[in-house]
Amino acid sequence: MSAQLDDLMQTPLAKQVREQVLAAKKAARPLARASADTKNAALLRMADDIEANRETIQAENEKDLAAGRANGLTAALLDRLTLTDDRVAGMADGLRQIAALPDPVGEVTGMSTRPNGLRIGRVRVPLGVIGIIYESRPNVTADAAALCLKSGNATVLRGGSEAIHSNIAIARVLQAAAKEAGLPDGSIEFLGTTDRQAVTAMLKQDDLIDVIVPRGGKGLIRYVVETSTIPVIRHEDGICHTYVDSAADLDMAREIAFNAKVHRPSVCNAMETLLVHRAVANDFLPAMCARFVDAGVELRGCEVTRAIAPSVAPATEEDWGEEYLELILSIRVVDSYDEAVDHIEEHGSHHSDTVVTDDYRTAQRFLADVDSSSVFVNASTRFADGYEYGLGAEIGISTQKLHARGPMGLEELTTYKFIVYGDGQVRS
Amino acid sequence: MSAQLDDLMQTPLAKQVREQVLAAKKAARPLARASADTKNAALLRMADDIEANRETIQAENEKDLAAGRANGLTAALLDRLTLTDDRVAGMADGLRQIAALPDPVGEVTGMSTRPNGLRIGRVRVPLGVIGIIYESRPNVTADAAALCLKSGNATVLRGGSEAIHSNIAIARVLQAAAKEAGLPDGSIEFLGTTDRQAVTAMLKQDDLIDVIVPRGGKGLIRYVVETSTIPVIRHEDGICHTYVDSAADLDMAREIAFNAKVHRPSVCNAMETLLVHRAVANDFLPAMCARFVDAGVELRGCEVTRAIAPSVAPATEEDWGEEYLELILSIRVVDSYDEAVDHIEEHGSHHSDTVVTDDYRTAQRFLADVDSSSVFVNASTRFADGYEYGLGAEIGISTQKLHARGPMGLEELTTYKFIVYGDGQVRS
Repeated sequence: MSAQLDDLMQTPLAKQVREQVLAAKKAARPLARASADTKNAALLRMADDIEANRETIQAENEKDLAAGRANGLTAALLDRLTLTDDRVAGMADGLRQIAALPDPVGEVTGMSTRPNGLRIGRVRVPLGVIGIIYESRPNVTADAAALCLKSGNATVLRGGSEAIHSNIAIARVLQAAAKEAGLPDGSIEFLGTTDRQAVTAMLKQDDLIDVIVPRGGKGLIRYVVETSTIPVIRHEDGICHTYVDSAADLDMAREIAFNAKVHRPSVCNAMETLLVHRAVANDFLPAMCARFVDAGVELRGCEVTRAIAPSVAPATEEDWGEEYLELILSIRVVDSYDEAVDHIEEHGSHHSDTVVTDDYRTAQRFLADVDSSSVFVNASTRFADGYEYGLGAEIGISTQKLHARGPMGLEELTTYKFIVYGDGQVRS
Repeated sequence: MSAQLDDLMQTPLAKQVREQVLAAKKAARPLARASADTKNAALLRMADDIEANRETIQAENEKDLAAGRANGLTAALLDRLTLTDDRVAGMADGLRQIAALPDPVGEVTGMSTRPNGLRIGRVRVPLGVIGIIYESRPNVTADAAALCLKSGNATVLRGGSEAIHSNIAIARVLQAAAKEAGLPDGSIEFLGTTDRQAVTAMLKQDDLIDVIVPRGGKGLIRYVVETSTIPVIRHEDGICHTYVDSAADLDMAREIAFNAKVHRPSVCNAMETLLVHRAVANDFLPAMCARFVDAGVELRGCEVTRAIAPSVAPATEEDWGEEYLELILSIRVVDSYDEAVDHIEEHGSHHSDTVVTDDYRTAQRFLADVDSSSVFVNASTRFADGYEYGLGAEIGISTQKLHARGPMGLEELTTYKFIVYGDGQVRS
């Protein structure tokens, strides 16, 4: 244990957190060895028990909602917090879907025989203990715990204070079901306090926790990155671009751009900036802008855009780096392919970007030049998603490069170890 | 840029570091696109120029050695610091070997066609900017820069203060050769200061540096982990075990245990603790201990061991968690397979562990039960090494689970991005 951790550990709260993390660590070893059958039985029992305990969970949820109303939470936040009948059923369905996925643990890759006869391969194993720190939506409790459990990991969960009663109720149901299915105590630990010092104490336990996955806004992620001595997998901004090339099929480009902006503007793979090659701007923009305006999209453009479509408001320099997450779009006309790529590299967040073009070389260059976790040709950025990619599940979309990049499924919640079969080899 | 970084950036030193990191970031984009031919030509030119500048490098090395002697460095440290003719030639050879390896960049894996016609795959790409922080040996400068360059990454290097003159001389040769070969300025940045604040400033630039690889002792690694907001790949202790099972071939066990301890005791994959099943302890230990004593190994054992081999000194509880890195070995007799595995999990460092057994089920269980980066059956732990595993190169042996575990080769210095070929798909 480090000196930093030693100091922290002086408070009763930190001691309580340490005990829970130790319980998770203790559970991790048997959990890593649990068969897929056992894990799936636990997940199905969790699903049944969530449904059977719907009214209890909703009664606790009502406490959170009452507190939220008293504290003046916005209507949008109160909505995210509310566990309707449908949402409870959705949680249970999510658990059943995760039970139906293949178990990633135990796959052996790259096994080969070395000249000295050693057979060496990599086997996929759980990471160990995963810490999940999240904000308001209480269904994340079930979702995150299930993904970690299916991939053989113990979990330490810390949800947002607005949902504390709902989260505790859900976590209790999950824990009881896991225990009844024969999984060890500690498989799912939930920090049942709203004291932020508990998060700080959790983030220093790099001797016990293998990775932290924060799911929330920029402030949360920044705090976690600056505080944690445990490796963090970040899920940050999506400032996604559609570039309409001079060789684009303009009808296709309008469908893709419209879909990328309007289909679900509140998510990270929605388009925030539309780049249009000057050679096609006069043909492309008027009908495109009209369609966006009809759909209620507020448009902000560069001077050239505004000369073509005068109803567009002027964009400021800040617009190019903004993740709107709503029906606002910035539009810029570029003189060349290079200008488009430079814009994406300078202003984008390396999340998901697409080019619309019928030119072979431009398509290939874009795939190579753009350093984003997902790079598309002739498709909407909205496809950047674990389900759409066939990963079967998604714990989030990583915006960092280490370990996992882009949509993260169950495999990204595992690591590997080398296994070596010998018959007496020694090194000379 | 974060508030933390903002504050730090007020000093001229931090501004200088920031400028160098920015230069590396700028180089990363063209470097990621450089062909294998260009990168290999640069590496071969570096090798030639290191040899051509041997005397200049050695003259600078002599300044470090003089300062080291004045500062009372130990003979061992002075030896590690010395650039003999052979070691300079070894550096050049290392560069040529890296040039000969296959380029990991550009490999596409798992490409498949989704039901909607999208073709989705992962392409291997460089991480971007890699920060390497290391201690005394100056040849790490050439080795680390070359591995990063071959995998398409820009590097920011920070070597130990004892080797500052040698490192600057080597870095200058590498930088000039890279430039002459057509690679961008900034491909290899070296922080030419011994001020520790430069390290702190470097470790906060998570907006520019993608990963930090510290290579050095525990103190360095702890400092980096606690300070860095950039993801860190740790290379920590190797407390490696050999477990001689009740079903072991005892002659084989003696060869493996001897090799694991004596072949090269100063490295992380050397054995530190020998575990012996009680059923074979009387047969196994006397000849084994005699052989170790003949080789100059100091033995420290449990009570049972000492009853069998009275010349063995008593082991304390601390011995089980000690990475000796020299000719000292702790020995413990265990009552069962489970006791052996529990000992390894409790006291080991999850680096490399081996079982010697002829029992099929014990072998399979050991491979599954032991959570170490390399788990062996009937072979010496000394094989835990990137070259022995066929990775072609090794930047180190990761003791963490995220991104890379165990021996790290060139592939572990890359990440991936998703590339998606569409023909107009939008999400419904």
